[in-house]
Amino acid sequence: MDSDAALAARLFDQLRAATSDGVGISRESYGAGESAALDMVEAEARAHGLATERDAGANLVVTLPGHDDALPFLACGSHLDSVPQGGNYDGAAGVVAGLLALAHFRADGFSPARTIKLYALRGEESAWFGRAYIGSSALFGKLSPDDLAMPHVVSGRPLRDCMADAGVAIDRVARGEKLLDPASVAAWLELHIEQGPVLVARNLPVAVVTGIRGNFRHRSIECLGEAGHSGAIPRWLRHDAVFATAELITRLDRHWRTLLERGRDLVITTGIIGTDPAEHALARIPGRLHFSFEARSQNTETLEAFYDLFRSECAGIAEERGVTFHFDRRLDSAPARMDPAWIERLRTTLHEMALPDEPIPSGAGHDAAVFANAGIPSAMIFVRNEHGSHNPEEAMAMGDFLCGAELLQRALRDAAAAP
Amino acid sequence: MDSDAALAARLFDQLRAATSDGVGISRESYGAGESAALDMVEAEARAHGLATERDAGANLVVTLPGHDDALPFLACGSHLDSVPQGGNYDGAAGVVAGLLALAHFRADGFSPARTIKLYALRGEESAWFGRAYIGSSALFGKLSPDDLAMPHVVSGRPLRDCMADAGVAIDRVARGEKLLDPASVAAWLELHIEQGPVLVARNLPVAVVTGIRGNFRHRSIECLGEAGHSGAIPRWLRHDAVFATAELITRLDRHWRTLLERGRDLVITTGIIGTDPAEHALARIPGRLHFSFEARSQNTETLEAFYDLFRSECAGIAEERGVTFHFDRRLDSAPARMDPAWIERLRTTLHEMALPDEPIPSGAGHDAAVFANAGIPSAMIFVRNEHGSHNPEEAMAMGDFLCGAELLQRALRDAAAAP
Repeated sequence: MDSDAALAARLFDQLRAATSDGVGISRESYGAGESAALDMVEAEARAHGLATERDAGANLVVTLPGHDDALPFLACGSHLDSVPQGGNYDGAAGVVAGLLALAHFRADGFSPARTIKLYALRGEESAWFGRAYIGSSALFGKLSPDDLAMPHVVSGRPLRDCMADAGVAIDRVARGEKLLDPASVAAWLELHIEQGPVLVARNLPVAVVTGIRGNFRHRSIECLGEAGHSGAIPRWLRHDAVFATAELITRLDRHWRTLLERGRDLVITTGIIGTDPAEHALARIPGRLHFSFEARSQNTETLEAFYDLFRSECAGIAEERGVTFHFDRRLDSAPARMDPAWIERLRTTLHEMALPDEPIPSGAGHDAAVFANAGIPSAMIFVRNEHGSHNPEEAMAMGDFLCGAELLQRALRDAAAAP
Repeated sequence: MDSDAALAARLFDQLRAATSDGVGISRESYGAGESAALDMVEAEARAHGLATERDAGANLVVTLPGHDDALPFLACGSHLDSVPQGGNYDGAAGVVAGLLALAHFRADGFSPARTIKLYALRGEESAWFGRAYIGSSALFGKLSPDDLAMPHVVSGRPLRDCMADAGVAIDRVARGEKLLDPASVAAWLELHIEQGPVLVARNLPVAVVTGIRGNFRHRSIECLGEAGHSGAIPRWLRHDAVFATAELITRLDRHWRTLLERGRDLVITTGIIGTDPAEHALARIPGRLHFSFEARSQNTETLEAFYDLFRSECAGIAEERGVTFHFDRRLDSAPARMDPAWIERLRTTLHEMALPDEPIPSGAGHDAAVFANAGIPSAMIFVRNEHGSHNPEEAMAMGDFLCGAELLQRALRDAAAAP
């Protein structure tokens, strides 16, 4: 078998080459790039003598069978889709780390008591359909008819059809059936690059995650004012959608600062904003603007309080400026706590590896939150990464990745060895 | 002679019928619809015993000769072209009002000291070649070789060729020759529908215009920050292009309000704004945003002061938020002041007519700005109009038009009667 570094480098290079979009990499949820990535990992797993299959959610599952069928299995993995023009490691790092572990176990002739399964999940990124964790949510019967009707951001095709095309048992998903019984899963372990700057700032190659922020989101809010000649309409007669929305964002920014000063956990983002190219012009007061809005917190009460504030500022500005805000469906994702026993186990292993140990919360959401909220003891390992993620500049050092992969491998081996 | 109302209604109906495009009316600059409109007004002028000719700019000129040839003549009129699917009154109202005045003078046997000329100008709208005031600019030698090379928006033919086909003395225009000596013109009086909502809001049938706003514009400014995962980067480490630009617009809006309170004339507009669809996402801190910015004022100093404020706010926000603003070429259009003595004369006449008098600035540009900037004392009369202009829904009540036409007629008669 190749060295871990050589195998990992080869797989990452293959993934990048196959799914490059010229700027970064694009692996569309339930689309071609994602499927290509699953195929690539599957071929590698088979080359290492591992059994593979696609589950009812069309995810790739690689299995190392245990000798005690009565025991719930250990699951590890992450997702293989990406945002458009994203980075190569977001998601893929966890899948490659799991594959390294299983390939090692197979090569070593390690025969675990518990079965170990590696999941290469689909549909984690919200960039394509406006909702995150589609693949893991489908596993636990958590996609609503509204979710399944969400249109693809480019083609407009409903999620339902795109999932069916990728091979998902869409009727079972539509019925809200659980494709995976939580009671059959002993634990979910997910390695992922950190998508923030904390490990870099603190000089930690890896860290154990304590919990995952939840969020509320509106994918597209419309501010409707009144279009008009930019030279001919004075300020007091304007209903300018851009000025109204700019004031809304500025007010929310001020509330955010205040909440942080009071020690609340919160981040807010408008990732998408735009006037309508079919009607906007330099010399035309914009009568229409659409924008997305998202808030994240580890605390559900903070999220709810901020949502009320957000809607009340919208109402105030609508009243003052004679515009209206139209909201699409609010999407929610609950905060999730990682399993204390697993946190403890991973931290102990870190100490055994003589690595620094400083657990941190996850600002980004992860499939691990869905597994945790389905009742499965879940844990996460973060790997240091520069320049954030969701961009082509994300940079994970191979040395840091190998630390994380070893931590995952040791934890899986220990937990699988004996009931 | 018909009543003024009957004559005006007939002419407007004829113009509409001849240049309807099914949605609104289309009178293409230097094209068939515009030429048909000129012919129609010329025939009507002749039927009233008035002398007509085409000048070197191919505009229609209707003349009522004065008895003192040594005196500069009085000019009135407006343009007869329109935007595609435009309204029937934008431009034509000023020509019809001038024709009513001259026909009346002729029917009354009024023999002025000064000659009075009505101009039905071509090429005012920027919709066809991308530049406004072509007809009036040609009169004063103000079309550059670049202007004359501008392609027609549909056919791609250069402006030069289209003007030549319409009968313009194109070689003289190309040489930058003045086709009309400003010293020969005592004044330019232009009646035009208001293209904004002010007269409707203030319940004024007509108003005297104080000046025509100039502007500065940036077609596309880029705010560059740093893209990143929306959940993973805390507020103090963000360089968010949308939040930075929202704060910029909100600060400029506040300055705008303050300047209005101090009596300055100003409108500001961001007609176009957008994150980049190739890279934006709901869960991505936007690293890039482009937006247009335009400010208009009657006063050059106000424009310059606001431009400095604008750039200084950009610099301040760039510093505070770690973003940069990149500016494309600044485009300028000079304001034009209407002649104070003429404003006074028109206001006095308004009072004599027992009409409300509240002078307003023109936010939109007009041929009168070109006459004024050529050194000719110029004045404008606005007529109330609903639903803005540049669309088929523009709506001018005949009663309002007749008020404006009478104001024009009285002012011309008084100024032409004696040297």
